[in-house]
Amino acid sequence: MIAFAMLLAASVCLAQDQGDFKPASSNVLDAQYPKVDGNSRVQIRFKAPDATKVKLNFWSGPKVDMEKQPDGFWTFTTAPMAPGLHYYTIIVDGAEVSDPSSTAYFGGSKWASAVEVPEAGVDYYQPNNVPHGQVRQVWYHSSVTGTWRDAFVYLPPDYDTQTIHYPVLYLQHGGGEDETGWTRQGKANFILDNLIASGNTKPMIIVMANGYASRAGYVVPDLTGKPFGSPEFLKVMQERMSAFEDDMTQVLIPFIDKTFRTLPDRDHRAMAGLSMGGMQTFQVTFDHLDLFSYIGGFSGAANVFLTGNGKMDTKTAFNGAMADPAAFARRVHLLWIGVGTNEPERMKTGLENLNASLDEGKIQHVFYESPGTDHEWQTWRRDLKNFAPRLFQTRSPSATSAR
Amino acid sequence: MIAFAMLLAASVCLAQDQGDFKPASSNVLDAQYPKVDGNSRVQIRFKAPDATKVKLNFWSGPKVDMEKQPDGFWTFTTAPMAPGLHYYTIIVDGAEVSDPSSTAYFGGSKWASAVEVPEAGVDYYQPNNVPHGQVRQVWYHSSVTGTWRDAFVYLPPDYDTQTIHYPVLYLQHGGGEDETGWTRQGKANFILDNLIASGNTKPMIIVMANGYASRAGYVVPDLTGKPFGSPEFLKVMQERMSAFEDDMTQVLIPFIDKTFRTLPDRDHRAMAGLSMGGMQTFQVTFDHLDLFSYIGGFSGAANVFLTGNGKMDTKTAFNGAMADPAAFARRVHLLWIGVGTNEPERMKTGLENLNASLDEGKIQHVFYESPGTDHEWQTWRRDLKNFAPRLFQTRSPSATSAR
Repeated sequence: MIAFAMLLAASVCLAQDQGDFKPASSNVLDAQYPKVDGNSRVQIRFKAPDATKVKLNFWSGPKVDMEKQPDGFWTFTTAPMAPGLHYYTIIVDGAEVSDPSSTAYFGGSKWASAVEVPEAGVDYYQPNNVPHGQVRQVWYHSSVTGTWRDAFVYLPPDYDTQTIHYPVLYLQHGGGEDETGWTRQGKANFILDNLIASGNTKPMIIVMANGYASRAGYVVPDLTGKPFGSPEFLKVMQERMSAFEDDMTQVLIPFIDKTFRTLPDRDHRAMAGLSMGGMQTFQVTFDHLDLFSYIGGFSGAANVFLTGNGKMDTKTAFNGAMADPAAFARRVHLLWIGVGTNEPERMKTGLENLNASLDEGKIQHVFYESPGTDHEWQTWRRDLKNFAPRLFQTRSPSATSAR
Repeated sequence: MIAFAMLLAASVCLAQDQGDFKPASSNVLDAQYPKVDGNSRVQIRFKAPDATKVKLNFWSGPKVDMEKQPDGFWTFTTAPMAPGLHYYTIIVDGAEVSDPSSTAYFGGSKWASAVEVPEAGVDYYQPNNVPHGQVRQVWYHSSVTGTWRDAFVYLPPDYDTQTIHYPVLYLQHGGGEDETGWTRQGKANFILDNLIASGNTKPMIIVMANGYASRAGYVVPDLTGKPFGSPEFLKVMQERMSAFEDDMTQVLIPFIDKTFRTLPDRDHRAMAGLSMGGMQTFQVTFDHLDLFSYIGGFSGAANVFLTGNGKMDTKTAFNGAMADPAAFARRVHLLWIGVGTNEPERMKTGLENLNASLDEGKIQHVFYESPGTDHEWQTWRRDLKNFAPRLFQTRSPSATSAR
């Protein structure tokens, strides 16, 4: 955060089109801005002819003032940014809105803007010339919520031409995001296409569900004015976590196993999630170790949000599921904790403490650090790229190498 | 347009939550506004504490001034609106932006806001308790564009449990929209689920492609400042139409026929589209009557945009494809022209002239008028609901009843 703030403060205003600035791949068709140059600097341009003050709000950094141009556009050029997809909004005379030039991505509980800064030498999340799987939107009626719910399901490239059954990874979005996040922001389908084509990853099905659920009859209280983390907010969150857990384990998993050619047992079922989705992953999997044998927390996991910086006692946590480290290692083939090295201090400390607790408890696990990335999608793309190849291998990597 | 303007002008400002106003189904999770009441009035609320002027811009009506409240929110309540999904934007001190409380829908070449006004007594586009098909996002490499392109494909509910082959409807979005429009705005998947469940519509595959294409190597000129309809704009549009036609007929159709269990002949292939997509439909199908035998133009069709209000000479149009009406009726099982009775005058006149030209030329066709709806999605939902049951019937309705 601090490094990023310094970079922004050092930014200079460039003339339009100077250098090798090109429209970002995240723009809508024909939009010339945002632009990104070879040094990962980003130019934003926003039309607000009658505004008094326009601020640019990259969520990973401080808000900065945009500069008004004579043509009614406001502009800003950043210093070099980390690679990946950066959410942002524009604040026009106090109204926080999206940039109409950007593709809208659901994040922060709204359809926000984002700019894709390419990572040099890397194409693992691009649509390369390899066989492509399908991403299917499916609908199921939930007896838990009393509503029709949808989920996105990635099927590996050979699904429709084979008759074999596949293992399944349940992969959850973060807080304020939805079931579209892992494909639209995360490019999970392209990551898996490329991993599978490389031969080192088992073809698998990925299920991406909506992490928000409300039991039938539950009336969500109006949270207007109730900030993230307030008691009212946390109560709704816990109610939804519980409803989500029941919907997933009682309705979604049976629906998926009925609808697709899955291997419907715990040895062929994984769950991972980012941020809030990581917390949900730990809750759901440890409550249901009969259903899951691979567990991934990407920048979010047990205790990080709710109990702060405290250490975990692995002897007693999760009703003692880890009390016997050797038995746990046989039962859970992979326990993965990921974090970006530039994530906010509270997040990093929480995950480092969790890692240290697992070390002290001699709990076999992998602690993955994504260099130079924040609490953002590039961290989670890297998590998935490194996590997926370890899933469903005949001999689990976790059985031979802790960390 | 005029009726709607009068309704807006007559609108009154209501106290918040007065009456039976409820959050719209098109809102993002937990957003309390926009609200809709039982009389189809819509309340919009937008936070802009430091703005001097905020306007509400329903695209089907005139821009209106919102009223600033002491809490920094601006509000407006409309008079009763027509049922359906209404695109809108907010103009904050000259900046035209989306409402963060609304789901974002791709329209007008940006991720715009929209509010869903329910239609009383109608549930044909809702997710009812019937079997649901899947909507699959698929990727194909186009030798025409030199890029990977995606398309959305609706598969009927029984696709994965049957081994039969299905007819295919290619269904195109309008100008400024994309391949997500027909499911996200149009609810095409739910419409087909319900039609198929009712037993009066053949199970079919629907392919929704992106109507914008550029040939490999074509550099799109910067259209900044070039209005819709300008020579520069039309040149780009024609180039894209041509590239789209080649991509669809040379790459997409073979890809679909290879990937899915289709009936790959003209008797089992239809194409329809709305507005620009209707124009594309007429161009593609009349150029390729060897590929298609069902044709639908929803608020857009031959000649409406490019040649204005002129009549069509059915003896010479499309290289004489309709010169022999009886032969044409045997060859084309359904020719459908749809229009909403409240569409803008230019659009209505163009389509009525086309209808009159077809009548005069004794060309068997259906002219469908959607009562009370504008150049908006409710018109096109109704088109699809009435068009789809006429497709792929053993004995084509068009063979026995003109109009």
